[in-house]
Amino acid sequence: MNFADRLIAAIKNKKSVACVGLDPHWDQIPAFLKEGRTPGEAILAFNKGIIDAISDLVPIVKPQLAFYEKFGMDGLGAFWETIKYAKEKGLLVLADGKRDDIGSTAVAYAQAYLDTKGEFGQYIDALTVNAYLGSDGVKPFVDLCREHDKGIFVLVKTSNPSSGELQDLRLADGMTVKEKMASLVARWGQDLEGKEGYSAIGAVVGATYPEDFEKLRAQMPQQIFLIPGYGAQGGTAADLKTCFDEQGLGAIVNSSRGIIFAYTKDSKYSEEDFAEAAREAVLKMNGELAANYKF
Amino acid sequence: MNFADRLIAAIKNKKSVACVGLDPHWDQIPAFLKEGRTPGEAILAFNKGIIDAISDLVPIVKPQLAFYEKFGMDGLGAFWETIKYAKEKGLLVLADGKRDDIGSTAVAYAQAYLDTKGEFGQYIDALTVNAYLGSDGVKPFVDLCREHDKGIFVLVKTSNPSSGELQDLRLADGMTVKEKMASLVARWGQDLEGKEGYSAIGAVVGATYPEDFEKLRAQMPQQIFLIPGYGAQGGTAADLKTCFDEQGLGAIVNSSRGIIFAYTKDSKYSEEDFAEAAREAVLKMNGELAANYKF
Repeated sequence: MNFADRLIAAIKNKKSVACVGLDPHWDQIPAFLKEGRTPGEAILAFNKGIIDAISDLVPIVKPQLAFYEKFGMDGLGAFWETIKYAKEKGLLVLADGKRDDIGSTAVAYAQAYLDTKGEFGQYIDALTVNAYLGSDGVKPFVDLCREHDKGIFVLVKTSNPSSGELQDLRLADGMTVKEKMASLVARWGQDLEGKEGYSAIGAVVGATYPEDFEKLRAQMPQQIFLIPGYGAQGGTAADLKTCFDEQGLGAIVNSSRGIIFAYTKDSKYSEEDFAEAAREAVLKMNGELAANYKF
Repeated sequence: MNFADRLIAAIKNKKSVACVGLDPHWDQIPAFLKEGRTPGEAILAFNKGIIDAISDLVPIVKPQLAFYEKFGMDGLGAFWETIKYAKEKGLLVLADGKRDDIGSTAVAYAQAYLDTKGEFGQYIDALTVNAYLGSDGVKPFVDLCREHDKGIFVLVKTSNPSSGELQDLRLADGMTVKEKMASLVARWGQDLEGKEGYSAIGAVVGATYPEDFEKLRAQMPQQIFLIPGYGAQGGTAADLKTCFDEQGLGAIVNSSRGIIFAYTKDSKYSEEDFAEAAREAVLKMNGELAANYKF
């Protein structure tokens, strides 16, 4: 089944458009999980606790590869075990790798993460992609999305403070760089539309720049938006109206630190409560989003 | 010692500005190396053969992470063993990962590849970086370059056919996107200048677009250019004049398939000759470059 349809089915099943980012910042992992474990083992124990606590509440999780690569082979082992475990628990898995390269090399990245026969690809449903290199750097990912019913989310407007340095620049033809990128993403996604009307080729659009939503949505009517920047970075549910259609579909909203390290934000939690705190944070986020959107 | 100075010392020592790309395209690895080995083991055996054959001839090698990630943990193990082996053989190691993310996550990528205490970082001298996300996504890499005497090469103008779709667009202020990126890269590199006058923050500028060299060099006088696209992609030595200073410094020229799979290009070689063929291809490339530039 087309990735967009699979994601929408999971959204309807879980009654949630939340995506939980599995970004294991080492300093915030509970100390008791680190005792007698390698960093990779501690990360895996932490992730399993989080996944067990939230797998019935959200459609998808998003492990951020940087936090696993940081610990070399040990960390990458934890990435592999994490995506496997998330899959077993019925979650969709979005690998946040922001991969990019020229055509012949982009093929290898696409095979790494989107080929169902691959060691990583068997457990991954979608990947984030940076398209600064243009169409021939994106086409191999699109081809494997078609072949293996996977998805990609292409960076259009990122949530960070300096995203505008390049993305907001105005071109001589009147468009901005992000709008040009949006027009390319819409084109790349054209023949990968699912039955629900959305494409397997989605777009990353930061929650921190709500002023951009209307125009980018008009340019990308078929793209599911992956919206980072909710919670810790400052985005709120009410900001996101233009991203959702009348059914409450069309976007997934990511929160990472605000969920998985919720135990550090409230003195009522001890370290041992990290999983319960994450569950409560997801319930709160789901509630905030459901108050604004129907899905 | 500053990465730019280390690279220039290695260039002078080896009398070569060539960079050999370790891009193990699976289909082109000799069949006899695959027998009885996992993909990762076969790749490592291949890479060791190449490294043994060329380590006295070039200053630096560039493993492309995509080809290792493709084989999951087994492939990443081969990446780790390859960079360790290259280091033991006296080569500088440039990890071609084109990593990019928002600030707090870019820190984790920088720690993964540029921290001397890291499992990967201990063997890596420099990393390629995609700066579509702007300054706060690049600063963590720059900070670790300063702290650990490492380098980065930021994508400015890539060598692939559709690189111009975004990179060549003209902005309302008259600059193109690649020129804007060049101006940012020059700024990021400002306080990381080594004794030879070059910065630890370099730029990727494709050999396939020689018409861009003059302007980009004028904008980035302190950047060492990493020039991909030589050989298999069509760039020639004579094209590169503007990239080098009067000492023949200021750039490294990468060839991947043209070197490591040279054995497939000439019927005089059998599979078993792959390493010798690579050595002969490096000698030829060094000769072509030395005929045009002094270093």
